[in-house]
Amino acid sequence: MVSATRPAGAATVPALPLPPCAATTSAPLAILPPIDVPAAQRHMEGHDHATRAAVLAVMAGSPTFRLHPGESKEVERARTAARWAELAGAGLFVDTVAAADAAAGRAKLDAIHETASLLDYSLCIGMSVHFSLFGGSIAALGTPAQAAAWLPGVEALTMRGCFALTELGHGSNARGVETEARYDAAADTFVLHTPTDAAQKYWIGGAATTARWAVAFAQLYMPGEAASRGVHAFIVRIREDDGALVPGILLADCGYKVGLNGVDNGRIWFSHAPVPRGHLLARYARVDAAGVYTCDAPSPDALFGVTMSALSGGRIGIAASGVGQARVALAIALRYALRRRAFAATPTTPETLLLDYPMHRRRLLPRLASTVVHQTALNDLKARWGRALSAKDGHVASCGFKSIMTWHALETMQVAREACGGQGYKSENRIGVSRAALDISATFEGDNTVLLQQVTKSCLASYARGGKSGGRWSGALEHLNHPLPLPPPIASMAFAVYTLRRAEATLLPRLAAAIAASAAEPGATPFAAFTAHQVAADAVAQVHTQLLLLVAFMSATGTGGGGGGGGGTARVPRSLRPLLDTLGTLHALAVVDDNAALLRVGALSPADAAAVHDAIDGLCTALRPHAAELAAVMTVPDFLLAPIAFDVVAHNSRARL
Amino acid sequence: MVSATRPAGAATVPALPLPPCAATTSAPLAILPPIDVPAAQRHMEGHDHATRAAVLAVMAGSPTFRLHPGESKEVERARTAARWAELAGAGLFVDTVAAADAAAGRAKLDAIHETASLLDYSLCIGMSVHFSLFGGSIAALGTPAQAAAWLPGVEALTMRGCFALTELGHGSNARGVETEARYDAAADTFVLHTPTDAAQKYWIGGAATTARWAVAFAQLYMPGEAASRGVHAFIVRIREDDGALVPGILLADCGYKVGLNGVDNGRIWFSHAPVPRGHLLARYARVDAAGVYTCDAPSPDALFGVTMSALSGGRIGIAASGVGQARVALAIALRYALRRRAFAATPTTPETLLLDYPMHRRRLLPRLASTVVHQTALNDLKARWGRALSAKDGHVASCGFKSIMTWHALETMQVAREACGGQGYKSENRIGVSRAALDISATFEGDNTVLLQQVTKSCLASYARGGKSGGRWSGALEHLNHPLPLPPPIASMAFAVYTLRRAEATLLPRLAAAIAASAAEPGATPFAAFTAHQVAADAVAQVHTQLLLLVAFMSATGTGGGGGGGGGTARVPRSLRPLLDTLGTLHALAVVDDNAALLRVGALSPADAAAVHDAIDGLCTALRPHAAELAAVMTVPDFLLAPIAFDVVAHNSRARL
Repeated sequence: MVSATRPAGAATVPALPLPPCAATTSAPLAILPPIDVPAAQRHMEGHDHATRAAVLAVMAGSPTFRLHPGESKEVERARTAARWAELAGAGLFVDTVAAADAAAGRAKLDAIHETASLLDYSLCIGMSVHFSLFGGSIAALGTPAQAAAWLPGVEALTMRGCFALTELGHGSNARGVETEARYDAAADTFVLHTPTDAAQKYWIGGAATTARWAVAFAQLYMPGEAASRGVHAFIVRIREDDGALVPGILLADCGYKVGLNGVDNGRIWFSHAPVPRGHLLARYARVDAAGVYTCDAPSPDALFGVTMSALSGGRIGIAASGVGQARVALAIALRYALRRRAFAATPTTPETLLLDYPMHRRRLLPRLASTVVHQTALNDLKARWGRALSAKDGHVASCGFKSIMTWHALETMQVAREACGGQGYKSENRIGVSRAALDISATFEGDNTVLLQQVTKSCLASYARGGKSGGRWSGALEHLNHPLPLPPPIASMAFAVYTLRRAEATLLPRLAAAIAASAAEPGATPFAAFTAHQVAADAVAQVHTQLLLLVAFMSATGTGGGGGGGGGTARVPRSLRPLLDTLGTLHALAVVDDNAALLRVGALSPADAAAVHDAIDGLCTALRPHAAELAAVMTVPDFLLAPIAFDVVAHNSRARL
Repeated sequence: MVSATRPAGAATVPALPLPPCAATTSAPLAILPPIDVPAAQRHMEGHDHATRAAVLAVMAGSPTFRLHPGESKEVERARTAARWAELAGAGLFVDTVAAADAAAGRAKLDAIHETASLLDYSLCIGMSVHFSLFGGSIAALGTPAQAAAWLPGVEALTMRGCFALTELGHGSNARGVETEARYDAAADTFVLHTPTDAAQKYWIGGAATTARWAVAFAQLYMPGEAASRGVHAFIVRIREDDGALVPGILLADCGYKVGLNGVDNGRIWFSHAPVPRGHLLARYARVDAAGVYTCDAPSPDALFGVTMSALSGGRIGIAASGVGQARVALAIALRYALRRRAFAATPTTPETLLLDYPMHRRRLLPRLASTVVHQTALNDLKARWGRALSAKDGHVASCGFKSIMTWHALETMQVAREACGGQGYKSENRIGVSRAALDISATFEGDNTVLLQQVTKSCLASYARGGKSGGRWSGALEHLNHPLPLPPPIASMAFAVYTLRRAEATLLPRLAAAIAASAAEPGATPFAAFTAHQVAADAVAQVHTQLLLLVAFMSATGTGGGGGGGGGTARVPRSLRPLLDTLGTLHALAVVDDNAALLRVGALSPADAAAVHDAIDGLCTALRPHAAELAAVMTVPDFLLAPIAFDVVAHNSRARL
């Protein structure tokens, strides 16, 4: 039935410059000096410090922002709305989506969303859907006139919007949405219609109760044409401003979710709903007054690619929320581990602090290191977004980072909850409740597994281009052009880069060859040929994304001794270098330790793997004296922590009953 | 600060018979015949089929058992109580804790708890706390007269009890509880007292509202003695039968948790509460009418060990609930993957079923295979519990299985939820809500990480005994006596056994040597010496438990060609052998693939690891045609599935609004 042999493609791997793998010992790391916590906190925040401080001030000062577990979704939604209103009342949204400097406006919004997500992911998502997805679609897909007409209302919250892309029948494959927009020349309107129950818009955040407008994505049919012109975006009123129903629009509630119940996800059916011609977002495609359709993109598929590029930025926001919530969980768990004791060496000695157990350090500290690396790489990506970064590189990074970072965050929050024992399971201690809210991030705005396949597809395209150009690879694959140097010391970021590159240099050509072999089979389609090798494709994406992430960290911080090809753009204060070097190294070791593919493919020897595994414990032990500072580096103000981050006995005392 | 070299212990590893590691190809597996689903379902249930059917009939037939997400804890608790009352009303608890045949009574209770947990983990835990922990303590720690006096009331629910062991300050280290029981000779009573806020009983299921009695664990002080006689168990009234307060008892609510809010976890303070002398559970220790204390155990520590053995059975129940809930999640996700489509090869071909994506199969099917292996091994453990199994072996198995199986279940439910996309996040689709409820199982009745350390301590003790006897190892370490045979074919359970044994044969002696070296350092304690090597100890426990589990499966099913040392106790119908052989093999491959320690330690070569990794895909592909049957093998009746296991579009249709 099955035989355990290598796939046929393995034999056809082209030779690439791979030096032998050899165990080396690292130079001992320098002793870590005291941490410059304020500088580290600024580094973690990255940008818009004043805005973040203003959001925190509103949240800290208002009873509306206290936590109330166990409420009905109606109460939770009302509370989310009240919080949003208080942020608006403080004037925080001025100069965001309607700002003259669009990039500055986006950065300010990011800062608001990220800070809100430290407390309440529903609040973050509710605002993101309105400002970044609804408003962002108008900004990205609308004409300048449309943007000028609508964005001020979006910013002022007088035009409350939602983002109606996903359908019950089409989630990941958004290109296949079935909602129809038929242009009616006589009436000079589009008519939106939901042809089947599978085509109902589904999961639309804000649609259940709060939104008055939607940006609705639909297949555009011009008169007399049987074929769609592709997916287009329309600004559609779904409720009157007073909440009254609108003819042709049917709305329903998606009901309870595992978390995030402050967001009113809803369902939309269109019943021959008329939409003015001017409400087609017309930056790339439009219908003129004579009823003539024109499009700047060469094909419906190309138009879809442009249209969906608005989503890439959303993925960065999701990754950022994940990293932020992991920071909260780690700060709480670390502080608990610095107070909580269990078991003693002898009946007369005090019990041992949790953080003095090697397993406890091992569970928390490598994840803390990765969280700092992720935050840094993400801040760097945001800074380069739309500027130094091509659309393609931005797409790859946003897909890869979103997947790796949300999974990392969910795993970190799970480990942090377990590290706090039963207390981690209490709602008031936040970790578990936040984890339940963040859980959806693994599958929304792109299922992580599907997004990683997109990373690999991009790698394969780059690899094919390199092959066609006679074996000159460029961009993120530039390393394939050079023989790798001798292996660097094991306890270094350079060793992880070296190992990941070795792995990529084998996995990627092998995958390309295997797909080519499958594609050459009779009756094969490119889709089937790629699909057959999904598991190997996933391994490529994991390696490629970890490389991107680590190199971005090294480049942005000037750490790692330049072995990562960092351009020395180093924007961090010199006082942070030892900390970032140590955490970067711990992260790098954990990435190598975590990935058995590196061993299977021969990029890492078993002896080196054992040395990496052991070096992690050494670094965790070395960081132990800095644990309280590291908790502070997570950059979470006290009011966003939890009772177990302070005196848990006093909090639970009889006197407080 | 840290250098990446092997720990000192590595050099002192004694030579053990390890043949060289060599890549081999497996014989192709026979084609899997159609699955005998009814036989497989009986196999999964294991025992007490009629009782399970009776519980399912009550649950299927009553509106009380419909699901209502998003309720307050008060409503959820009331619903749990109503469900319990309906089961009691059906006479299901007759002949359980008070049965003449105690083992049969326990098996019947297990069947009831396991079946309840398929729907509502709160119901399962609420009942388990009362029957298995409260009633089980009376049965295990009480005299025959005490059992006769109290167990009928426990069975009839007229004496509703809770289990008051954990304190705010002492969870994992229950030996350190601080609650005091002082014998007052003049009054011939014990006086229970909570000396500090840290000593309040905490997380006590049932204490917030429902329980009237507690088995309370306290340090016993005899008159005039400063030292405790150790932890003893007392039957204490905490509320009147009508719910009224009792003098000397203060109760409070633990509040909201991430899940499991149908269980009313509470807190208890004792204020010099008098407890009759006869309410000390007196099987192993007692105070006679003359006020004289006698104890059958040689020391307070030994008494504690005996006292806590009542908990081991509880761990099996927790593992069983985990496996059961993983089965529900897998049944739902598999059925969804057999209906849901996404992406097409060409615009004119139908979209692809999720289960026709190799990544999707890879995420679900190995976990399904492990779930079947876990269920089988657990059924086998229950059958041997208290009979063919020593107390020590039972303790090791219950600690190891509980840890591995609950983590596996939580991971499986997470993957299943992600495999269902946003629908998996909807409360009505059950997976996420069940996962949140089960989450606590990773840390209650023993933190998994701590329990695994206990597995390793037992291995070390066995290893030391073998060493002292001149190198003759026995029991689960018997394999250390023999040179391992040549490696079996890779796609076999025998290969996993071979590889895990190779790893254990290196990891365990290395750990023992490292601990010995640490213990020999000046000022070292045995506690500190063991603690210093916790991370290596964890690896030993993982390998040892997976071995126990796989060998138990092979032995209980007669599969795997006898390479696992199975005694051929095979209690399964011949028609199931091909299925169990295939699933056992897939599980075995996944266990090897999952554990990089096997590569690091040299028990698995990189080439073999690659072959194992690839063989998993082959087996998943081979199982694809059987997917619908495999969903049925999960043994979950339709009414316990979820809307997405059926026609999701019809369920969400406009007509149903």
